[in-house]
Amino acid sequence: MRTPSIPVKFDPAKLRESLDGRWGEVRDRVRGVLENESLPAGDGLDTESHRAHTFEQLRRLADSEIVRVGFPVEYGGSGDRGGSVVAMEMLAGNLSLMVKSGVQWGLFGGAVTALGTERHHEKHLRSIMDLSEPGCFAMTETGHGSDVQHLGTTAVYDPATAEFVVHTPDESARKDYIGNAARDGRTAAVFAQLYTPTADGGTANHGVHALLVPLRDEAGEPLPGVSISDCGRKAGLNGVDNGRISFDRVRVPREALLNRYGDVAEDGSYSSPIEGVNKRFFTMLGTLITGRVSVAGTAGAATKLALEIALRYGDARRQFTNPRTGGETPVLDYLAHQRKLLPALATSYALHFAQEELVATLHDLRQASPEDDPEGRAQRELESRAAGLKAVTTWHATRTIQDCREACGGSGYLTENQLTGLKADTDVFTTFEGDNTVLLQLVAKGLLTDYREGFDELGTLGMARYVADQFVGTVIERTAARSLIQRLVDASPGRDDEDALFDRGWQLRLFEDRERHVLDGVARRLRRAGSGDNDPFEVFNDAQDHVLRAARVHIDRIVLEAFVAGIERCTDPAVAEMLERLCDLYVLCNIEADRGWFLEHERISPRRSKAVTEAVNALCKGLRPHAVELITAFGIPRQWLRAPIATGAQPGTG
Amino acid sequence: MRTPSIPVKFDPAKLRESLDGRWGEVRDRVRGVLENESLPAGDGLDTESHRAHTFEQLRRLADSEIVRVGFPVEYGGSGDRGGSVVAMEMLAGNLSLMVKSGVQWGLFGGAVTALGTERHHEKHLRSIMDLSEPGCFAMTETGHGSDVQHLGTTAVYDPATAEFVVHTPDESARKDYIGNAARDGRTAAVFAQLYTPTADGGTANHGVHALLVPLRDEAGEPLPGVSISDCGRKAGLNGVDNGRISFDRVRVPREALLNRYGDVAEDGSYSSPIEGVNKRFFTMLGTLITGRVSVAGTAGAATKLALEIALRYGDARRQFTNPRTGGETPVLDYLAHQRKLLPALATSYALHFAQEELVATLHDLRQASPEDDPEGRAQRELESRAAGLKAVTTWHATRTIQDCREACGGSGYLTENQLTGLKADTDVFTTFEGDNTVLLQLVAKGLLTDYREGFDELGTLGMARYVADQFVGTVIERTAARSLIQRLVDASPGRDDEDALFDRGWQLRLFEDRERHVLDGVARRLRRAGSGDNDPFEVFNDAQDHVLRAARVHIDRIVLEAFVAGIERCTDPAVAEMLERLCDLYVLCNIEADRGWFLEHERISPRRSKAVTEAVNALCKGLRPHAVELITAFGIPRQWLRAPIATGAQPGTG
Repeated sequence: MRTPSIPVKFDPAKLRESLDGRWGEVRDRVRGVLENESLPAGDGLDTESHRAHTFEQLRRLADSEIVRVGFPVEYGGSGDRGGSVVAMEMLAGNLSLMVKSGVQWGLFGGAVTALGTERHHEKHLRSIMDLSEPGCFAMTETGHGSDVQHLGTTAVYDPATAEFVVHTPDESARKDYIGNAARDGRTAAVFAQLYTPTADGGTANHGVHALLVPLRDEAGEPLPGVSISDCGRKAGLNGVDNGRISFDRVRVPREALLNRYGDVAEDGSYSSPIEGVNKRFFTMLGTLITGRVSVAGTAGAATKLALEIALRYGDARRQFTNPRTGGETPVLDYLAHQRKLLPALATSYALHFAQEELVATLHDLRQASPEDDPEGRAQRELESRAAGLKAVTTWHATRTIQDCREACGGSGYLTENQLTGLKADTDVFTTFEGDNTVLLQLVAKGLLTDYREGFDELGTLGMARYVADQFVGTVIERTAARSLIQRLVDASPGRDDEDALFDRGWQLRLFEDRERHVLDGVARRLRRAGSGDNDPFEVFNDAQDHVLRAARVHIDRIVLEAFVAGIERCTDPAVAEMLERLCDLYVLCNIEADRGWFLEHERISPRRSKAVTEAVNALCKGLRPHAVELITAFGIPRQWLRAPIATGAQPGTG
Repeated sequence: MRTPSIPVKFDPAKLRESLDGRWGEVRDRVRGVLENESLPAGDGLDTESHRAHTFEQLRRLADSEIVRVGFPVEYGGSGDRGGSVVAMEMLAGNLSLMVKSGVQWGLFGGAVTALGTERHHEKHLRSIMDLSEPGCFAMTETGHGSDVQHLGTTAVYDPATAEFVVHTPDESARKDYIGNAARDGRTAAVFAQLYTPTADGGTANHGVHALLVPLRDEAGEPLPGVSISDCGRKAGLNGVDNGRISFDRVRVPREALLNRYGDVAEDGSYSSPIEGVNKRFFTMLGTLITGRVSVAGTAGAATKLALEIALRYGDARRQFTNPRTGGETPVLDYLAHQRKLLPALATSYALHFAQEELVATLHDLRQASPEDDPEGRAQRELESRAAGLKAVTTWHATRTIQDCREACGGSGYLTENQLTGLKADTDVFTTFEGDNTVLLQLVAKGLLTDYREGFDELGTLGMARYVADQFVGTVIERTAARSLIQRLVDASPGRDDEDALFDRGWQLRLFEDRERHVLDGVARRLRRAGSGDNDPFEVFNDAQDHVLRAARVHIDRIVLEAFVAGIERCTDPAVAEMLERLCDLYVLCNIEADRGWFLEHERISPRRSKAVTEAVNALCKGLRPHAVELITAFGIPRQWLRAPIATGAQPGTG
């Protein structure tokens, strides 16, 4: 086997340019902000001090470039939705600050912007931006985290006073884990089942809507009827004050309803531009996906920071004498160490380009007029991709940061070396803003139904029967660099020589074929089992691993396509060649990890399977000398890199 | 495929008896101690309070059953080496306390017991047991963690005063991460290169030895020449005061040398019952493996506690409505949730029996007279197994506790629900008491050389060439229940029917065959590459993944044998049947995870490989109703289970 060549040198500035991509200018502006503003993480502090420290930092960010970029131009923002995601992820070295910012400006500010109308914008956006109105995004409840459609909080309209009565009927309906609630929040966007009176004296439910509910008075005391308790200490993110909120028949004016997608007139009559409770609910949720995309971006950035620490340490740290040279060997020279870190580096590259693609789609779709997407298909596909990439990227973060910690041994366990903080802070990313398993299920459902219908449930309801009705066969739709990918695939019909492993066309075909096969298999299985009298829950549940797998391999393919597209955009030959090798490593590690499936389905021979492992080892060896340069190219702001083991301040790592 | 039957009910007390095993009585005594003594973990506390809290708890344990069990009978102990490991792991609900106890009584007390002679025992053991002499185990240095043979600290004998001069020559030789150092330690067992003067005015090095060096005076101030600094905050275990110690020509009397394996006479002449610096060093290290075995035991116990929390939550927590029943579904009913937790439960069972086997071997070998093991083969095999099981069990802990956290969603992220503390505290287990990767390499080396020679280096030195000389072919030596295993293997020659998956003989043969094949392959590869002029480092390094794999599959086989032996000891038919199914799940998950290898080497057909996945799913479904009972059977002391999500105190989990 001949491993393709790895450039001896390349221009790091050109690589940075490729990685910075379309929002390079925003990245540079944020780097500028962060050069002039020291915002150290508060890892050593007790809970109250950490919260105060973070809130104070939030004040310093208020109205800065980082905040403004995402808000509407009319209110002093740049209206740059993509830029806002990119800007936020650059806070990855202080994740309490990032999450607290995300709650205030992303979730709370985003809900007011997207679900509210002019009256809310006029009244709230300026005070949200300048932090004079700290707010909460009160969606999750103790009893309902993943299944938000069945929230228990109620908002019942009372025509006598033209008010809504917001109420927590039981303990499982209390709002839970709400950021900004325990200490700082003054107002909350509360998601509740909306009820209006009917002619016969009953009430009609219109599904989940959001209302702005004041939480605290000027002195910071909870208002009458509002009970707030503290979620207390968490694994990480202790600069964020998560709390629980209950409402005891709290009255808010009719205008508190964020009424873009559903409104109640003074007489209590309900109106909405969207027919159907489910469709309306998912339309509203859809406007809020920026938060999910931000989590993916931040998880990716935190992973890069962790990798930079571990790779710098591995490059400098020496252990065990090489008998031939007499010197001690840098630990990154060991194959086992390379295996721990370099595939993760390649995956970080792949996910970086996939995230860029996602952010661009998010940004452009917002710009497009609704007529371009009358059935909402593009929007639903975007939501699916955001869900899938969030799951894959946050799992990648959890695994990689763990591996980085281990790769730094005892040093990695010390708080001063940052890895433990990164691990603890990002840990919740796999389950917040949507539990990863639930999100992958959402992706699978979109694939199986070809996005043909609004998601009626996030769960398993009727899934099997539904699929039986809907599925007509898999069409692989390419998501990026379509014509290039077609050319590459066409150029490698049935290649079977030794070097095919490194042929991008062969790799692409393999990923596409896997996706098609898995998806067809799931659909056939659900249809067969779902057509009789079988319990639909059982049918679906027995296939759940298969369903999740379909989502996973779909996302793998999309990520690969984004990587290919990213390389295509690169104009520097040496940089492009380096990216090609990183892409090879990403693909071949993916195949290696999944070789059980490829062998089971006779997609690769046992001989080729072994060759994949050899190729991964060869790529690790070849890329190792460039490892530090390759991770540094991401341009993580320098103030975040303070671990003594990564800056040479620790003895023996200089 | 016909899945073997799962008993509808069984007697939990009988299962507990099987699991408690040979040291059941010790376990019950410790449970008694822990019923009468509340020892809550100090997770919410700041560092200094947490340390004070833990030291105070240590005082309450001093001289208790938990401490006494491991010390010599002459000093009031029970001299029960196996019992001491079992007793210590039962502190798993308060890991700072466990590790601090392990440092004081296991490592420090163990070093004095094993490396010292009567004069040290008389002077120190009582004060160590009753905690009036808190101590440190000062081995690791900043520059040398894994490669302890090349420690930089020196102890030079000065015949003029009959003293040793203990010295830290440079910053990389400072003692680092030393438990008990930053706050409480009064004395340290310091590992240093021992030098004596030679006739020609030079010095001779006798390799690493340990000496007792006083650190602090009665007032707690460091003694002259001793510099101590604080490692500061860590991911977890913040009740343990890790510190860094440097010595500036500190003089200690000649008698401070722990002189069981090497002594210096007043005139400076060196003597030792063991020839050769390396052999002596590894003999000394070998006496200290109890610490490593304890880490494995504790990691196992912490994993069980985490699983108990996650399984109780999964059993009670409901999410998403089942359209047929109208009720919400307990999350543990979902296949994906079962897949996350039940294979880990089965692996915990497997590792539990393997740990019991290891503890028994450790215990019995200590009892045996040296004539029974003249070449130290049994001792080295024990060390190898301890190393391998420590690696596998601590990785299992890291992965499983992570999965448990995710399986509990946002609740799992709250400190009150314990999982974050368990995760953070156990995280360092994969790299302390030996880095797992280095340990697996040690295992592989033992296999390749058939334990025929003392381990000359833990590293890679000359490994390739060495193997080329030594390896004569693999012999699988069964480690437990030998005749039963032989019968099972004999009874399944070349079975190839559908139900073979559940045939223990078929499973055992598959594991043995894999081990043999991998090991033969590594040996051939190293011999081939090592015979020419190739750089031995390169040769070895290129094969490192292969080498580590050999160790891993060896340990897998040993674990399976221990499980089989454990089932054989069980006399209750229903309990035995339950254990058989858990063993099936352990084996089949292992095969599934490694099916890439089995398919590559045509050990299983693609069709059978798919059947393995089906069998795993079927076993998960079958075992699910018993999950809570099965995890509770381990008898983790009830005071450790306080997570509101596991005790029904959280709404919706009652």
